[in-house]
Amino acid sequence: MSLPEAFLDPASVAVVGATDDHAKWGYWLASGALKGAERRDVWLVNRRAGTVLGHPAHRSITDLPAAPELVVLCVPAAHVRGVVEEALAKGSRAFLAITAGVEDQAEIVALLAAADARMLGPNSLGMYDADADLQLAWGDFAPGPLAIVSQSGQLGSEIAALGERAGLGVSRFYSVGNQADLTAAELLEGLVDHERTKIVSVYLESFTDGVRLVAAMRALRQAGKHVLVLTTGASEGSKRLAQSHTGSLTSSADLVDAACRAAGALRVSTPRELVDLARFLSVAGLPGSRRLAVISDSGGQGGIAADVAASLGLTTPEFSPELQARLRALLPAGAAVSNPVDLAGAGEADLDVYAVVSEELANSAEVDIVLVSGYLGCYGEDSPPILERELAVVDRLGVLADSSHVPMLVHSMSAGSRAVTRMWEHHIPAFDTVDAALRAAAGVARLAAEPGRDLKVPQAVPASVGEGYWAARDLLADLGVGLPDAVVVHDPADLAAAAGLRYPVVLKAGWLEHKSEHGGVRIGLSSPEELADAFAEMFARLGDGEYVVEEQDTRRGVVEMLIGARRDRDFGPTILLGYGGVEAELWRDVRTELAPVDRATATAMVEQLRSRALLDGWRGKPRVDVEGLVEAVVTVSEAIASSPQLTDIEINPVRVAPDGVIAVDALVLHAAPLTAATKEEP
Amino acid sequence: MSLPEAFLDPASVAVVGATDDHAKWGYWLASGALKGAERRDVWLVNRRAGTVLGHPAHRSITDLPAAPELVVLCVPAAHVRGVVEEALAKGSRAFLAITAGVEDQAEIVALLAAADARMLGPNSLGMYDADADLQLAWGDFAPGPLAIVSQSGQLGSEIAALGERAGLGVSRFYSVGNQADLTAAELLEGLVDHERTKIVSVYLESFTDGVRLVAAMRALRQAGKHVLVLTTGASEGSKRLAQSHTGSLTSSADLVDAACRAAGALRVSTPRELVDLARFLSVAGLPGSRRLAVISDSGGQGGIAADVAASLGLTTPEFSPELQARLRALLPAGAAVSNPVDLAGAGEADLDVYAVVSEELANSAEVDIVLVSGYLGCYGEDSPPILERELAVVDRLGVLADSSHVPMLVHSMSAGSRAVTRMWEHHIPAFDTVDAALRAAAGVARLAAEPGRDLKVPQAVPASVGEGYWAARDLLADLGVGLPDAVVVHDPADLAAAAGLRYPVVLKAGWLEHKSEHGGVRIGLSSPEELADAFAEMFARLGDGEYVVEEQDTRRGVVEMLIGARRDRDFGPTILLGYGGVEAELWRDVRTELAPVDRATATAMVEQLRSRALLDGWRGKPRVDVEGLVEAVVTVSEAIASSPQLTDIEINPVRVAPDGVIAVDALVLHAAPLTAATKEEP
Repeated sequence: MSLPEAFLDPASVAVVGATDDHAKWGYWLASGALKGAERRDVWLVNRRAGTVLGHPAHRSITDLPAAPELVVLCVPAAHVRGVVEEALAKGSRAFLAITAGVEDQAEIVALLAAADARMLGPNSLGMYDADADLQLAWGDFAPGPLAIVSQSGQLGSEIAALGERAGLGVSRFYSVGNQADLTAAELLEGLVDHERTKIVSVYLESFTDGVRLVAAMRALRQAGKHVLVLTTGASEGSKRLAQSHTGSLTSSADLVDAACRAAGALRVSTPRELVDLARFLSVAGLPGSRRLAVISDSGGQGGIAADVAASLGLTTPEFSPELQARLRALLPAGAAVSNPVDLAGAGEADLDVYAVVSEELANSAEVDIVLVSGYLGCYGEDSPPILERELAVVDRLGVLADSSHVPMLVHSMSAGSRAVTRMWEHHIPAFDTVDAALRAAAGVARLAAEPGRDLKVPQAVPASVGEGYWAARDLLADLGVGLPDAVVVHDPADLAAAAGLRYPVVLKAGWLEHKSEHGGVRIGLSSPEELADAFAEMFARLGDGEYVVEEQDTRRGVVEMLIGARRDRDFGPTILLGYGGVEAELWRDVRTELAPVDRATATAMVEQLRSRALLDGWRGKPRVDVEGLVEAVVTVSEAIASSPQLTDIEINPVRVAPDGVIAVDALVLHAAPLTAATKEEP
Repeated sequence: MSLPEAFLDPASVAVVGATDDHAKWGYWLASGALKGAERRDVWLVNRRAGTVLGHPAHRSITDLPAAPELVVLCVPAAHVRGVVEEALAKGSRAFLAITAGVEDQAEIVALLAAADARMLGPNSLGMYDADADLQLAWGDFAPGPLAIVSQSGQLGSEIAALGERAGLGVSRFYSVGNQADLTAAELLEGLVDHERTKIVSVYLESFTDGVRLVAAMRALRQAGKHVLVLTTGASEGSKRLAQSHTGSLTSSADLVDAACRAAGALRVSTPRELVDLARFLSVAGLPGSRRLAVISDSGGQGGIAADVAASLGLTTPEFSPELQARLRALLPAGAAVSNPVDLAGAGEADLDVYAVVSEELANSAEVDIVLVSGYLGCYGEDSPPILERELAVVDRLGVLADSSHVPMLVHSMSAGSRAVTRMWEHHIPAFDTVDAALRAAAGVARLAAEPGRDLKVPQAVPASVGEGYWAARDLLADLGVGLPDAVVVHDPADLAAAAGLRYPVVLKAGWLEHKSEHGGVRIGLSSPEELADAFAEMFARLGDGEYVVEEQDTRRGVVEMLIGARRDRDFGPTILLGYGGVEAELWRDVRTELAPVDRATATAMVEQLRSRALLDGWRGKPRVDVEGLVEAVVTVSEAIASSPQLTDIEINPVRVAPDGVIAVDALVLHAAPLTAATKEEP
């Protein structure tokens, strides 16, 4: 879906509320609109008429020679509705509402809908389109490949400003304001086919439209555009602020990350990180993976680079003996060649060594990114006689960068020498701190690892739905998840049915949502007599209900994990896998993805857990049934994704042993109202 | 101890190897030395004589009119020794050796020692002293408050360059090179009384002189100077590099952090972080603690600031209702007042609101640092008519900064406006990214939390020393650490002695260092008969030795922790506390400090552990004996610190229950050679 043409390249624009007063938005919007006056009609509207910015102003929209295709609203909040009505009557169908504090927003949206008209805002800080000479926003924009879609106008401006300072321009800018009509998701969809846009930055406080946003970001990635996401709500402070600021309920950072992985987008933490990563992406491509080669003319800088790289999730693997031998042949005796490479003064003796070593590494198939850190970029600046030689080396590196799949990257001690400028021209990102260089490298490596995936709603899994533990067991059984043998017991007479079970057994008050907390669980009942006593006691206390007697899982070598599926307010079905059992909340070793997940994604979830070492056989124990665990994750994720009536499936713990997976407690919740019995917990 | 005056402000300097060739160090050192020619005699020595840099050159040191107080060596490596001999004969007693690759370094050091002379280097990139017009290094330095002591000359230069670009100058610069004679520790000691130096940056690859370095850094902190430490070795790559580069064995980052805490210094990760933190410290003081107030004119920027702050260990606590009410009275209806504060356009209406709100917060006693993030600093730049008003607000903030103990801090979207410059003049650090601002804030908060502490060697703890588990038990008993009752058994006849023990018991082959791995442990022996059988089996397998029969700790509600004391190669005695038991290595939840620690420090170690929640009573369990654990940490730390013959004391696990601490396995190692029996493990 694309945006109405009137938002992209309108044939005429009217700025209502245009003024000569620099302290008002009507001044900035009018000045911006006039920059496109050679391309389109720009009408300034001010109820006092006269002139604005040296142009004759019109008293009202009605007075205009024709209906403006796009109407910019900079009028006081109380006047917005009237102007919209007037413009609709005149024939306009597109609005950009800068005005904040519009109280009758809902009525205005209804008017627009009735007229098949659209609006960006209100409370927008404006929009910009580099190709259409359309600048309806405060400030100046330089044209470039970065699109900005922001729920905070000022944060969008900060991104644009940081980008411009670093030579990265903007393709389109949308301050989405209150998203009363046009949403961030629609604006993102409108960027999919936008040729100039190569990188998309998104700032959102809330992900109300989460499913559509994920789809839009995925479409952008599939169109070859990288999406970088800034959000807020990772701390108590920012959650409080978002709620008092816009009433937004923020999403957890874990869930936003999961959404980004599904979409093939990447969450970053600050505008600076975003812009550095966008700068990298504006000239260079993604690496194959995260193996970094470091070349430095200083052991100190090489070491720091390796440490920072490791802290950001990159690796600096030791080179093969063969590659080390080839490097040794190129370098003086004191050089380090295992990775990092320390040139040991070779660069000063012969600048070509930077290119020769880079070529050797880029062609080695042993690394995915090559970083040069240190003095390169400063030689000619500090000693002008060698500038041309330095530029020739950079040219040679540029040939390498363009011919190799391995991106080149530079941290130069120079802030902006001619050699550094030349690097950018040759598609070699060059930063003046190793922090920025490696953060960008880590970002592109993560983008490379997460190309996004389809979230196909699976065939409905045949899922029994009912209340209580016994029904939860039924659901898990339908899903093929292993369970201990069990029987339902309503009164002492039913206990005979437990005779066929292997002891010890567990007695549970199955209808209680929080069984343990209410004394509704007794474990380790080692004989029918102990079971009978326990039942008598529990029945006396909790009364009638659906009790469950279950064989206790006494297998050895068990690892307790947890699987949780949940329907998120914003992003829909999600699936979580984590370290389970009593200390689960202490270690918080969990991984969340949007549901459903396939086997590959579920396997990746296992791989990311710290506790995966337990699964592989901890300290001499046998490996447990990881495949079974993966299968359970997949099937539970499919159940939540295909069954809208389910809101939660929690299995904690799921006991994973070498011979298979057994769920020993489970909770299933439905969107349907709970029964009275379930509500009336003691 | 201070440096010889000849290194600080020599009356005469000779540069040997001075040349007109820009590609050689002799050129840069000679040019630098000449900058001090009004203050001292500067003699250029070149064996071809003639002129260098337009000055007459001398053929040799012998030809000089007098003995130079400081001799700079830029001659080829093979000539260094000869020049040193000549200079010593002439009467010189101080040397700066730039030359790298000096093979007869040891002989030269012996010559110097015999003559009571000192040398910086070889392989130094030079030195600089702002007060003494002494620039014996490549490049230019701006005078300022930052001292740089670096084992990597180029990394030192990068710090200086980043500082200069940001307006932070250098007081002294020492590239320590190989530290063949003068060490980093001595150079740091020499900075303690140096008035101009306010902040000290240190880069070291190895901490050979760890104990003295810690003492020097502590002395600097006590003199009011902050020490920022860069090091390497946190990754496999940098460890490999350091070893191939200088043969250095790096220290673990955990241990360097522990050393920094003891000294009251702070480890940082990159030159950029170091310089940003140093810039903060160059104008502002330490906060009381880590509670941050955020003021922004953008909800987005305020939210991002809160999230980044939390990720760096700062807090943004919710303001008290009283403070929120006071803020609400100052701000328009839409403003957020709980922290972060969102000005909601109030800044545009009245710039004074920045100062008014800042004053309210700084005086509230509810926060330790006030951050303003957003547009402040840009108003006058974008709209010149309001510049004076903006500067007046900054002046008012400056008054606040100077009169309050709460540091003010700004993230401004402007890179360097007049308002931003004015902020720095008023002791308000102002950064152009929120990343830099908050990293600096987090750094000063950590410095505030770690003032350093005395490492007094305690009175020798009466510590039995012997081989094997029984001796380890004796040591722990001497230290007052709880132990299960036990007896020693050498043959079946001795088993009678176990009759008095409470069953179940554990049988251990006490002389084995890795008992479990060699089948030298049997647990859960519930009767004398089971014990006898187990002993017969183990004795048949392992033969003669000091077996130990010990009561098994069957208390409930136990948390397994580990205590490890170790004598580190560089830093001396250390103490570690961590989550223990079978999964200890998985979670790596440990805290290390230099030993000894007092109760306060040991308590802080507990507080820092994630597993501390287990100790406090996890999920309804009773709280365990944290005081007993702290006491054990203190006493073990004192034992390692006071007993040079001990190299390791490891108690894993130490079982902590509500009624006390019991060590159930322990290993003690000594510097003395192991006995044959201990070596001959099966």
